[in-house]
Amino acid sequence: MAIEVYWGSGSPFAWRVLLALEHKRLPYVSHVLQFSKQEHKSPHMLALNPRGKVPVLKDGDYVCFESLAILYYLDLKYPEPHIFGHTPEEAGTIMRVICEYQAYIEPHVNTIARAVFSGPTDLGADPITGAMHTLGTEARTIEGRLSKSDWIVGDAYSAVDMVIFPGIQLLKRALEKPQARELSSRFMPVEVNYPALGRWLARVAALPGYERTYPPHWRGT
Amino acid sequence: MAIEVYWGSGSPFAWRVLLALEHKRLPYVSHVLQFSKQEHKSPHMLALNPRGKVPVLKDGDYVCFESLAILYYLDLKYPEPHIFGHTPEEAGTIMRVICEYQAYIEPHVNTIARAVFSGPTDLGADPITGAMHTLGTEARTIEGRLSKSDWIVGDAYSAVDMVIFPGIQLLKRALEKPQARELSSRFMPVEVNYPALGRWLARVAALPGYERTYPPHWRGT
Repeated sequence: MAIEVYWGSGSPFAWRVLLALEHKRLPYVSHVLQFSKQEHKSPHMLALNPRGKVPVLKDGDYVCFESLAILYYLDLKYPEPHIFGHTPEEAGTIMRVICEYQAYIEPHVNTIARAVFSGPTDLGADPITGAMHTLGTEARTIEGRLSKSDWIVGDAYSAVDMVIFPGIQLLKRALEKPQARELSSRFMPVEVNYPALGRWLARVAALPGYERTYPPHWRGT
Repeated sequence: MAIEVYWGSGSPFAWRVLLALEHKRLPYVSHVLQFSKQEHKSPHMLALNPRGKVPVLKDGDYVCFESLAILYYLDLKYPEPHIFGHTPEEAGTIMRVICEYQAYIEPHVNTIARAVFSGPTDLGADPITGAMHTLGTEARTIEGRLSKSDWIVGDAYSAVDMVIFPGIQLLKRALEKPQARELSSRFMPVEVNYPALGRWLARVAALPGYERTYPPHWRGT
Protein backbone atom coordinates (compact mmCIF):
# COMPACT_ATOMS: atom_id res chain seq x y z
CA MET A 1 0.00 0.00 0.00
CA ALA A 2 1.28 3.42 -0.92
CA ILE A 3 2.14 6.10 1.60
CA GLU A 4 -0.56 8.75 1.79
CA VAL A 5 0.17 12.26 2.90
CA TYR A 6 -2.43 14.86 3.86
CA TRP A 7 -1.18 18.40 3.68
CA GLY A 8 -2.13 21.98 2.99
CA SER A 9 -0.57 24.52 0.68
CA GLY A 10 1.72 26.91 2.56
CA SER A 11 1.95 24.91 5.80
CA PRO A 12 5.66 24.88 6.65
CA PHE A 13 5.09 21.77 8.77
CA ALA A 14 3.60 19.83 5.87
CA TRP A 15 6.31 21.05 3.51
CA ARG A 16 8.95 19.32 5.65
CA VAL A 17 7.33 15.96 5.09
CA LEU A 18 7.13 16.43 1.32
CA LEU A 19 10.83 17.33 1.26
CA ALA A 20 11.64 14.12 3.13
CA LEU A 21 9.48 11.94 0.89
CA GLU A 22 11.07 13.41 -2.24
CA HIS A 23 14.59 13.05 -0.86
CA LYS A 24 13.97 9.41 -0.02
CA ARG A 25 12.31 8.97 -3.44
CA LEU A 26 9.32 7.31 -1.81
CA PRO A 27 6.17 7.10 -3.90
CA TYR A 28 3.21 8.72 -2.17
CA VAL A 29 -0.39 9.68 -2.74
CA SER A 30 -0.75 13.39 -2.16
CA HIS A 31 -3.96 14.78 -0.65
CA VAL A 32 -3.91 18.58 -0.68
CA LEU A 33 -6.53 19.86 1.74
CA GLN A 34 -8.12 23.30 1.41
CA PHE A 35 -7.69 25.15 4.70
CA SER A 36 -10.26 27.73 3.53
CA LYS A 37 -12.86 24.96 3.32
CA GLN A 38 -11.79 23.54 6.70
CA GLU A 39 -11.00 20.25 5.01
CA HIS A 40 -8.34 19.54 7.67
CA LYS A 41 -11.15 19.47 10.25
CA SER A 42 -13.40 17.03 8.35
CA PRO A 43 -14.62 13.90 10.19
CA HIS A 44 -12.22 11.83 8.07
CA MET A 45 -9.25 13.99 9.07
CA LEU A 46 -10.26 14.20 12.74
CA ALA A 47 -10.39 10.41 12.78
CA LEU A 48 -6.76 10.39 11.62
CA ASN A 49 -5.60 13.27 13.85
CA PRO A 50 -8.02 14.42 16.56
CA ARG A 51 -6.21 17.78 16.66
CA GLY A 52 -7.27 18.48 13.09
CA LYS A 53 -3.80 19.49 11.99
CA VAL A 54 -1.65 18.63 9.03
CA PRO A 55 0.59 17.02 7.98
CA VAL A 56 -0.77 13.54 8.55
CA LEU A 57 0.99 10.52 7.11
CA LYS A 58 -0.72 7.20 6.55
CA ASP A 59 1.48 4.24 5.71
CA GLY A 60 -0.70 1.16 5.38
CA ASP A 61 -2.52 0.96 8.69
CA TYR A 62 -0.08 3.19 10.53
CA VAL A 63 -0.97 6.84 11.04
CA CYS A 64 1.50 9.46 12.21
CA PHE A 65 1.29 13.21 12.67
CA GLU A 66 3.45 16.05 13.97
CA SER A 67 6.03 16.80 11.30
CA LEU A 68 9.14 15.91 13.29
CA ALA A 69 7.62 12.57 14.29
CA ILE A 70 6.83 11.83 10.65
CA LEU A 71 10.42 12.61 9.57
CA TYR A 72 11.68 10.39 12.35
CA TYR A 73 9.34 7.53 11.43
CA LEU A 74 10.20 7.76 7.74
CA ASP A 75 13.91 7.64 8.51
CA LEU A 76 13.58 4.51 10.62
CA LYS A 77 11.23 2.78 8.20
CA TYR A 78 13.00 3.80 4.98
CA PRO A 79 16.57 4.51 6.08
CA GLU A 80 18.24 5.30 2.75
CA PRO A 81 19.34 8.03 2.49
CA HIS A 82 19.59 8.76 6.21
CA ILE A 83 18.29 12.17 7.24
CA PHE A 84 19.21 12.06 10.95
CA GLY A 85 22.97 11.70 10.56
CA HIS A 86 25.46 8.87 10.47
CA THR A 87 26.78 8.85 14.03
CA PRO A 88 25.14 9.37 17.42
CA GLU A 89 27.01 12.65 17.72
CA GLU A 90 25.83 13.96 14.35
CA ALA A 91 22.29 12.78 15.08
CA GLY A 92 22.34 14.50 18.47
CA THR A 93 23.45 17.75 16.87
CA ILE A 94 20.83 17.52 14.12
CA MET A 95 18.15 17.03 16.77
CA ARG A 96 19.63 19.81 18.89
CA VAL A 97 19.47 22.36 16.09
CA ILE A 98 15.91 21.24 15.25
CA CYS A 99 14.94 21.78 18.91
CA GLU A 100 16.65 25.17 18.95
CA TYR A 101 14.81 26.18 15.78
CA GLN A 102 11.48 25.13 17.26
CA ALA A 103 12.07 26.83 20.59
CA TYR A 104 13.83 30.04 19.63
CA ILE A 105 13.10 30.81 15.98
CA GLU A 106 9.80 29.31 14.85
CA PRO A 107 7.62 31.31 17.29
CA HIS A 108 9.06 34.53 15.85
CA VAL A 109 8.55 33.40 12.25
CA ASN A 110 4.93 32.72 13.16
CA THR A 111 4.59 36.14 14.78
CA ILE A 112 5.83 37.87 11.61
CA ALA A 113 3.78 35.70 9.24
CA ARG A 114 0.61 36.23 11.27
CA ALA A 115 1.17 39.97 11.49
CA VAL A 116 1.78 40.34 7.75
CA PHE A 117 -0.85 37.95 6.42
CA SER A 118 -3.67 38.46 8.91
CA GLY A 119 -4.59 41.93 7.87
CA PRO A 120 -4.27 45.27 9.57
CA THR A 121 -1.56 45.09 12.20
CA ASP A 122 0.91 47.77 13.18
CA LEU A 123 4.09 46.22 11.81
CA GLY A 124 6.10 48.78 13.77
CA ALA A 125 4.74 47.54 17.12
CA ASP A 126 7.29 46.34 19.66
CA PRO A 127 6.43 42.61 19.61
CA ILE A 128 6.81 42.59 15.81
CA THR A 129 10.07 44.53 15.63
CA GLY A 130 11.35 42.48 18.59
CA ALA A 131 10.60 39.25 16.74
CA MET A 132 12.36 40.62 13.65
CA HIS A 133 15.38 41.58 15.71
CA THR A 134 15.64 38.07 17.20
CA LEU A 135 15.26 36.54 13.75
CA GLY A 136 18.15 38.67 12.51
CA THR A 137 20.37 37.41 15.32
CA GLU A 138 19.38 33.78 14.75
CA ALA A 139 19.85 34.14 11.00
CA ARG A 140 23.42 35.27 11.61
CA THR A 141 24.06 32.05 13.55
CA ILE A 142 22.67 29.96 10.69
CA GLU A 143 24.65 32.09 8.22
CA GLY A 144 27.77 31.19 10.21
CA ARG A 145 27.04 27.48 9.91
CA LEU A 146 26.28 27.73 6.20
CA SER A 147 29.38 29.73 5.43
CA LYS A 148 31.38 26.68 6.55
CA SER A 149 29.28 23.92 5.06
CA ASP A 150 26.67 23.41 2.34
CA TRP A 151 24.18 22.05 4.88
CA ILE A 152 23.13 23.18 8.33
CA VAL A 153 24.65 20.22 10.23
CA GLY A 154 27.29 17.86 8.86
CA ASP A 155 28.06 17.44 5.19
CA ALA A 156 24.70 16.24 3.89
CA TYR A 157 21.13 17.45 3.45
CA SER A 158 19.33 16.29 6.59
CA ALA A 159 16.17 16.58 8.66
CA VAL A 160 17.37 19.88 10.10
CA ASP A 161 17.48 21.44 6.63
CA MET A 162 14.01 20.06 5.96
CA VAL A 163 12.67 21.51 9.22
CA ILE A 164 14.15 24.97 8.79
CA PHE A 165 13.81 25.55 5.03
CA PRO A 166 10.00 25.93 4.88
CA GLY A 167 10.08 28.35 7.81
CA ILE A 168 12.62 30.58 6.10
CA GLN A 169 10.58 30.48 2.91
CA LEU A 170 7.46 31.50 4.83
CA LEU A 171 9.36 34.34 6.48
CA LYS A 172 10.73 35.49 3.12
CA ARG A 173 7.29 35.43 1.59
CA ALA A 174 5.89 37.55 4.43
CA LEU A 175 8.76 40.03 4.22
CA GLU A 176 8.38 40.40 0.46
CA LYS A 177 4.95 41.95 0.91
CA PRO A 178 4.93 45.71 0.25
CA GLN A 179 3.54 46.50 3.71
CA ALA A 180 6.55 44.75 5.31
CA ARG A 181 9.15 46.83 3.46
CA GLU A 182 10.30 48.80 6.47
CA LEU A 183 10.22 45.85 8.85
CA SER A 184 12.31 43.76 6.49
CA SER A 185 14.89 46.35 5.54
CA ARG A 186 17.79 44.76 7.39
CA PHE A 187 16.85 41.21 6.47
CA MET A 188 15.87 41.42 2.84
CA PRO A 189 17.01 40.62 0.27
CA VAL A 190 18.21 37.49 2.07
CA GLU A 191 20.73 36.84 -0.72
CA VAL A 192 22.47 40.16 0.04
CA ASN A 193 22.28 40.23 3.83
CA TYR A 194 22.83 36.52 4.40
CA PRO A 195 24.62 35.26 1.30
CA ALA A 196 25.37 31.74 2.56
CA LEU A 197 21.73 31.35 3.65
CA GLY A 198 20.66 32.57 0.23
CA ARG A 199 22.88 29.99 -1.51
CA TRP A 200 21.45 27.28 0.76
CA LEU A 201 17.89 28.26 -0.16
CA ALA A 202 18.82 27.93 -3.83
CA ARG A 203 20.58 24.61 -3.15
CA VAL A 204 17.46 23.09 -1.57
CA ALA A 205 15.26 24.48 -4.33
CA ALA A 206 17.47 22.74 -6.92
CA LEU A 207 17.00 19.27 -5.38
CA PRO A 208 15.15 16.61 -7.39
CA GLY A 209 11.40 16.66 -6.75
CA TYR A 210 11.46 20.09 -5.15
CA GLU A 211 8.87 21.47 -7.54
CA ARG A 212 6.33 18.94 -6.29
CA THR A 213 6.75 20.23 -2.73
CA TYR A 214 6.30 23.92 -3.53
CA PRO A 215 3.05 25.40 -2.14
CA PRO A 216 0.66 25.42 -5.12
CA HIS A 217 -1.08 28.64 -4.11
CA TRP A 218 2.23 30.50 -3.90
CA ARG A 219 2.85 30.13 -7.62
CA GLY A 220 2.53 33.29 -9.58
CA THR A 221 1.35 35.30 -6.61
CA MET B 1 35.89 9.63 30.21
CA ALA B 2 32.71 9.85 32.22
CA ILE B 3 29.57 11.55 31.03
CA GLU B 4 29.10 14.94 32.66
CA VAL B 5 25.72 16.52 33.08
CA TYR B 6 25.06 20.12 33.99
CA TRP B 7 21.63 20.74 35.43
CA GLY B 8 19.62 22.85 37.83
CA SER B 9 17.28 21.80 40.59
CA GLY B 10 13.65 21.96 39.50
CA SER B 11 14.28 22.31 35.75
CA PRO B 12 11.89 19.84 34.14
CA PHE B 13 14.13 19.76 31.07
CA ALA B 14 17.18 18.72 33.07
CA TRP B 15 15.17 16.15 35.01
CA ARG B 16 14.41 14.28 31.77
CA VAL B 17 18.10 13.71 31.16
CA LEU B 18 18.73 12.41 34.67
CA LEU B 19 15.83 9.96 34.27
CA ALA B 20 17.37 8.68 31.02
CA LEU B 21 20.86 8.33 32.51
CA GLU B 22 19.50 6.41 35.51
CA HIS B 23 17.35 4.17 33.34
CA LYS B 24 20.31 3.31 31.15
CA ARG B 25 22.44 2.86 34.29
CA LEU B 26 25.11 5.11 32.84
CA PRO B 27 27.63 6.48 35.29
CA TYR B 28 27.78 10.28 35.20
CA VAL B 29 29.33 13.23 36.94
CA SER B 30 26.57 15.50 38.16
CA HIS B 31 27.07 19.28 38.21
CA VAL B 32 24.14 20.98 39.92
CA LEU B 33 24.17 24.67 38.99
CA GLN B 34 22.57 27.34 41.17
CA PHE B 35 20.14 29.32 39.05
CA SER B 36 19.97 31.97 41.79
CA LYS B 37 23.71 32.58 41.34
CA GLN B 38 23.36 32.60 37.53
CA GLU B 39 25.82 29.73 37.35
CA HIS B 40 24.13 28.53 34.12
CA LYS B 41 25.28 31.80 32.51
CA SER B 42 28.94 31.54 33.58
CA PRO B 43 31.65 31.83 30.89
CA HIS B 44 32.28 28.08 31.25
CA MET B 45 28.61 27.25 30.67
CA LEU B 46 28.22 29.76 27.82
CA ALA B 47 31.18 28.10 26.13
CA LEU B 48 29.27 24.79 26.28
CA ASN B 49 25.86 26.25 25.37
CA PRO B 50 25.80 29.84 24.08
CA ARG B 51 22.13 30.07 25.06
CA GLY B 52 23.05 29.63 28.72
CA LYS B 53 20.44 26.95 29.32
CA VAL B 54 20.50 23.58 31.01
CA PRO B 55 20.64 20.65 30.67
CA VAL B 56 23.99 20.32 28.95
CA LEU B 57 25.60 16.93 28.45
CA LYS B 58 29.29 16.44 27.88
CA ASP B 59 30.43 13.01 26.78
CA GLY B 60 34.18 13.10 26.22
CA ASP B 61 34.66 15.87 23.66
CA TYR B 62 31.07 15.84 22.50
CA VAL B 63 28.69 18.46 23.89
CA CYS B 64 24.91 18.31 23.46
CA PHE B 65 22.05 20.41 24.77
CA GLU B 66 18.28 20.66 24.41
CA SER B 67 16.79 17.84 26.45
CA LEU B 68 15.14 15.93 23.61
CA ALA B 69 18.38 15.97 21.62
CA ILE B 70 20.27 14.62 24.63
CA LEU B 71 17.78 11.76 25.08
CA TYR B 72 18.08 11.00 21.38
CA TYR B 73 21.88 11.06 21.44
CA LEU B 74 22.04 8.86 24.56
CA ASP B 75 19.74 6.31 22.97
CA LEU B 76 21.84 6.04 19.83
CA LYS B 77 25.14 5.96 21.72
CA TYR B 78 24.04 3.65 24.55
CA PRO B 79 21.10 1.73 23.09
CA GLU B 80 20.26 -0.67 25.91
CA PRO B 81 17.56 -0.35 27.12
CA HIS B 82 16.00 1.45 24.17
CA ILE B 83 13.94 4.49 25.07
CA PHE B 84 12.61 5.38 21.60
CA GLY B 85 10.72 2.16 20.92
CA HIS B 86 11.42 -1.09 19.14
CA THR B 87 9.82 -0.54 15.75
CA PRO B 88 9.62 2.47 13.42
CA GLU B 89 5.89 2.68 14.20
CA GLU B 90 6.40 2.71 17.96
CA ALA B 91 9.26 5.19 17.63
CA GLY B 92 7.12 7.46 15.44
CA THR B 93 4.33 7.41 18.01
CA ILE B 94 6.72 8.10 20.89
CA MET B 95 8.07 11.10 19.01
CA ARG B 96 4.55 12.20 18.05
CA VAL B 97 3.36 12.26 21.65
CA ILE B 98 6.54 14.09 22.69
CA CYS B 99 5.87 16.70 19.99
CA GLU B 100 2.23 17.00 21.06
CA TYR B 101 3.30 17.46 24.68
CA GLN B 102 5.76 20.18 23.70
CA ALA B 103 3.33 22.00 21.42
CA TYR B 104 0.02 21.73 23.26
CA ILE B 105 0.72 21.02 26.95
CA GLU B 106 4.10 22.34 28.03
CA PRO B 107 3.31 26.02 27.29
CA HIS B 108 0.31 25.78 29.63
CA VAL B 109 2.32 24.05 32.36
CA ASN B 110 4.79 26.91 32.12
CA THR B 111 1.98 29.48 32.32
CA ILE B 112 0.66 27.92 35.54
CA ALA B 113 4.09 27.43 37.10
CA ARG B 114 5.11 31.01 36.31
CA ALA B 115 1.86 32.42 37.65
CA VAL B 116 2.08 30.47 40.91
CA PHE B 117 5.79 30.78 41.62
CA SER B 118 6.51 34.28 40.34
CA GLY B 119 4.61 36.11 43.02
CA PRO B 120 1.51 38.22 42.91
CA THR B 121 -0.60 37.21 39.93
CA ASP B 122 -4.36 36.99 39.69
CA LEU B 123 -4.74 33.22 39.44
CA GLY B 124 -8.37 33.74 38.42
CA ALA B 125 -7.39 35.69 35.28
CA ASP B 126 -8.58 34.30 31.97
CA PRO B 127 -5.19 33.20 30.58
CA ILE B 128 -4.52 31.22 33.76
CA THR B 129 -7.92 29.54 34.01
CA GLY B 130 -7.80 28.91 30.26
CA ALA B 131 -4.42 27.18 30.59
CA MET B 132 -5.81 25.09 33.46
CA HIS B 133 -8.84 24.12 31.40
CA THR B 134 -6.66 22.96 28.50
CA LEU B 135 -4.45 21.01 30.90
CA GLY B 136 -7.51 19.24 32.25
CA THR B 137 -8.53 18.19 28.74
CA GLU B 138 -5.02 17.02 27.86
CA ALA B 139 -4.70 15.16 31.17
CA ARG B 140 -7.85 13.22 30.31
CA THR B 141 -6.22 12.10 27.06
CA ILE B 142 -3.13 10.91 28.94
CA GLU B 143 -5.37 9.29 31.56
CA GLY B 144 -7.02 7.36 28.73
CA ARG B 145 -3.65 6.07 27.51
CA LEU B 146 -2.52 5.13 31.01
CA SER B 147 -5.74 3.34 31.85
CA LYS B 148 -4.88 0.89 29.06
CA SER B 149 -1.13 0.56 29.62
CA ASP B 150 1.44 1.12 32.35
CA TRP B 151 3.38 3.53 30.13
CA ILE B 152 2.34 6.37 27.87
CA VAL B 153 3.27 4.69 24.58
CA GLY B 154 3.81 0.95 24.10
CA ASP B 155 4.51 -1.46 26.93
CA ALA B 156 7.75 -0.02 28.30
CA TYR B 157 9.05 3.09 30.03
CA SER B 158 10.30 5.33 27.22
CA ALA B 159 11.49 8.80 26.28
CA VAL B 160 7.91 10.06 26.22
CA ASP B 161 7.44 9.16 29.89
CA MET B 162 10.75 10.89 30.66
CA VAL B 163 9.68 14.03 28.78
CA ILE B 164 6.23 14.32 30.35
CA PHE B 165 6.87 13.18 33.94
CA PRO B 166 8.89 16.21 35.13
CA GLY B 167 6.31 18.58 33.63
CA ILE B 168 3.47 16.90 35.50
CA GLN B 169 5.51 16.99 38.70
CA LEU B 170 6.15 20.71 38.22
CA LEU B 171 2.45 21.31 37.59
CA LYS B 172 1.52 19.30 40.70
CA ARG B 173 3.98 21.23 42.81
CA ALA B 174 2.54 24.54 41.61
CA LEU B 175 -1.02 23.41 42.20
CA GLU B 176 -0.22 22.20 45.73
CA LYS B 177 0.54 25.75 46.82
CA PRO B 178 -2.18 27.21 49.05
CA GLN B 179 -2.77 30.18 46.74
CA ALA B 180 -3.57 27.77 43.86
CA ARG B 181 -6.29 25.92 45.78
CA GLU B 182 -9.20 27.28 43.79
CA LEU B 183 -7.44 27.03 40.44
CA SER B 184 -6.53 23.40 41.08
CA SER B 185 -9.86 22.22 42.48
CA ARG B 186 -10.82 20.07 39.49
CA PHE B 187 -7.30 18.73 38.91
CA MET B 188 -6.01 17.96 42.37
CA PRO B 189 -5.48 15.61 43.98
CA VAL B 190 -4.23 14.01 40.78
CA GLU B 191 -4.60 10.56 42.32
CA VAL B 192 -8.34 11.10 42.73
CA ASN B 193 -9.18 12.96 39.52
CA TYR B 194 -6.78 11.07 37.26
CA PRO B 195 -6.16 7.73 38.98
CA ALA B 196 -4.21 6.09 36.16
CA LEU B 197 -2.00 9.18 35.89
CA GLY B 198 -1.50 9.04 39.64
CA ARG B 199 -0.43 5.39 39.48
CA TRP B 200 1.97 6.22 36.64
CA LEU B 201 3.56 9.01 38.70
CA ALA B 202 4.11 6.51 41.51
CA ARG B 203 5.44 3.93 39.04
CA VAL B 204 8.11 6.31 37.73
CA ALA B 205 8.99 7.41 41.26
CA ALA B 206 9.61 3.77 42.21
CA LEU B 207 12.19 3.21 39.45
CA PRO B 208 15.81 2.49 40.45
CA GLY B 209 17.86 5.67 40.80
CA TYR B 210 14.82 7.93 40.90
CA GLU B 211 15.87 9.50 44.17
CA ARG B 212 19.04 10.83 42.55
CA THR B 213 16.98 12.68 39.96
CA TYR B 214 14.59 14.39 42.39
CA PRO B 215 15.08 18.18 42.59
CA PRO B 216 17.18 18.70 45.73
CA HIS B 217 15.53 21.99 46.68
CA TRP B 218 12.07 20.40 46.56
CA ARG B 219 12.86 18.10 49.46
CA GLY B 220 11.11 18.97 52.67
CA THR B 221 9.57 22.13 51.26
